[in-house]
Order: sequence, then structure tokens, then C-alpha cells
Amino acid sequence: MTPRGRRPVGSDTRAAILASARDLFAEVGYERASIRGIARRAGVDAALVHHYFGTKDELLAAAVDVPVDIGAVAEAAFEDRARAGEVLIRSVLAIWEVPEFRSRFLGLVRAAVTHPGAASMLREAIVRGPLRDVTRRIDLPAAQLRAELAATHIIGLMMGRHVLQIEPLASATPDELARAIGPALQRYLTEPDLVV
Amino acid sequence: MTPRGRRPVGSDTRAAILASARDLFAEVGYERASIRGIARRAGVDAALVHHYFGTKDELLAAAVDVPVDIGAVAEAAFEDRARAGEVLIRSVLAIWEVPEFRSRFLGLVRAAVTHPGAASMLREAIVRGPLRDVTRRIDLPAAQLRAELAATHIIGLMMGRHVLQIEPLASATPDELARAIGPALQRYLTEPDLVV
Repeated sequence: MTPRGRRPVGSDTRAAILASARDLFAEVGYERASIRGIARRAGVDAALVHHYFGTKDELLAAAVDVPVDIGAVAEAAFEDRARAGEVLIRSVLAIWEVPEFRSRFLGLVRAAVTHPGAASMLREAIVRGPLRDVTRRIDLPAAQLRAELAATHIIGLMMGRHVLQIEPLASATPDELARAIGPALQRYLTEPDLVV
Repeated sequence: MTPRGRRPVGSDTRAAILASARDLFAEVGYERASIRGIARRAGVDAALVHHYFGTKDELLAAAVDVPVDIGAVAEAAFEDRARAGEVLIRSVLAIWEVPEFRSRFLGLVRAAVTHPGAASMLREAIVRGPLRDVTRRIDLPAAQLRAELAATHIIGLMMGRHVLQIEPLASATPDELARAIGPALQRYLTEPDLVV
């Protein structure tokens, strides 16, 4: 018999922990959500949360999981440093062509502008995920700000293309956009004389 | 005596028409909202809507009014074409320093990502307002797409700075951001060899 308020171990438990994590991150934000609080909400022991997901950082990554390895995307972008900006935006645009990824990300943005807690969750997910992956490859001063300038340009592009759907931007091909935007990102990522 | 369902003429009527316009634009979007439908909702004659606000375009501008003359901002930016990007972003950042303007714009973005109708309203407001003001000053092919690339960069900056509040971007001074972002906008606005 399962103890009162405890769920059986297995894939249901894993899903219950993830759901509780998403709820609590969105309600109170990343900083104030605790593994203990998430465990309580899921009706499991905190040790089980650690067992399935490791650290709070890793649980966050799983909770907002878009099944794309951004570390690999960043690595590929910087293989040819002189083309990092264009390769990066090409990868991002290719990812967005997949409706499932796009809708997952739009759902996060929607939550972020509506709930401050969700904004904190999305901020941490971006800062600890894609931003860190890109930042660590920038071998220049103000690496984090540079990565953020590139990231916000990309987020704005997504807003214009998929939320506001402004034409001709929304109908432009990924190739057209990559050639137009690549150099702007390139400058943020690799131009030494960027004044920041 | 006032006829049934009719409001007295005056500032109350003007406010009622504006409120009905905001509601209907947000509910069904710009294209499907009619002057007649807005008038009906406000309990006034359609002629009165035209009397107070002119065309549907003008009513939209009043409904999403941020009391900043973007036409003048765009004109000032292009006074020295070689510095258009930097002057434009400096103006935008100065406007955002005013909490009232910032919260008004954030409210629109919040509505846009939540309600498709509001997204349509915001799209039309941007396309018929700031985008048109900037586009008409770009004397190069693909002027509209160029203005949109600049606009989405600015929208993304706003998201990163005021919604996600990513550091160090959120705490960077307007001057630091203007120097970092100005050249990217400059390229969109005036670089002939931009591939679009």
C-alpha cells in the first residue's frame, strides 16, 4: 500500500514532480521555489526530486525543456568564429520552423508577460541555458551583455514574426532573415570595438 | 431627456467610445472591429464616432495612444542620416524611462501575447504608427522590412530589460545601450548592401 499523500515511484511520479515544478516556478518564481516545496506539492519526498532531476537548476531545465541542445547549437555557431552570428540565427530560425518548439516557447513568453513568477522562471531558464552556452564562447569583455544583446534581438524577431505577425517580416524566409540579421549578431558576439 | 441606450454628448461620450474601441479591438482584432460595432457598444451613433475620432485608423491611434509624437522622433532621428540608428534608440530609451509610457506599452504587449485580437490591434497600431513614420524616411529598397528589423530589435530589448529583467542588460544605462545597439539599427535603416 502506498503511504497517504505519497505517489508510487515511476513515470507518473516524474511527471507529477515536473508539473509541480512548473506550477511553483510560475507562481513564486525561480528564486523562491524550493525543491522541498515542489516535492510537497507533488506528494513525494524531496530526496526523490533530487533522485530524478538532480539540482534545482537541472529541474528548471527539465521543467522548461525544449528538446534542443542549445549547447551544441552554440558550439556549432562558433566553429567558424567569423560566421557565428549567421550560423546562430540560422539554427534558431530552423528550430522555430518546428511548430512544437515554437508553441512551447511562445507559451513561456505568454506566461512571462502575465505572471512575474513565470518571468523569473523564463529569465533563469534563459540565463542558465542558452545565454550561458553562448556567453562562455565569447572571449571578449562584457561577454554576458553581448550574449544578451544577441538574445533580445532574437526574442524581438520571434515577437514580430510569430506574435505580432508583422508583414513582410512574418513571411520572410529564414534565409532572408539570416542574411539580414546575421551581421548584427556577429557584431555583438565578436566585434572587439563594441562599446559596452 | 436622453433617448434609451444613448449617452449625452460630451467628454463622457468620448471616453465611452474609446473604452468600447479598446474592448472591441482587443476582442476581435483591428480588421474585424467596425466603427458601427464600436458605436453600438458605446450606445452612440456611428456618426458621432466619426465626429470625435475621424477614421478607424485615427480611432485606433487614439485607443492605443501613447502621448509621444513618433513622427517627430523619426524626423529627429533622420536629421543626421549617419546617426539615425543611435538617435532613434536614444529617443526610445528616453521614452521608456517614463514609467507611464513603459507600463502602457507593456500592457499592450501583455494583451497581445494573450489575445489574438489584441495582437492584431497592436500590430496595426505599430504598422500604422511608428513603423510608417520610420519606413517613409528610409530611401532604400525593402524599407518596410528594414523598419521592422529595427522595431523587433527594439521590442526584444524592451522584453529583456523590462519583462525578463536579465542582468546586466536591465541595469545598463540608456547611453551604454544606445552605443551598443545604435550601429545595428543604423545598418537596418541606411546600409544599402543589407541583403533582404
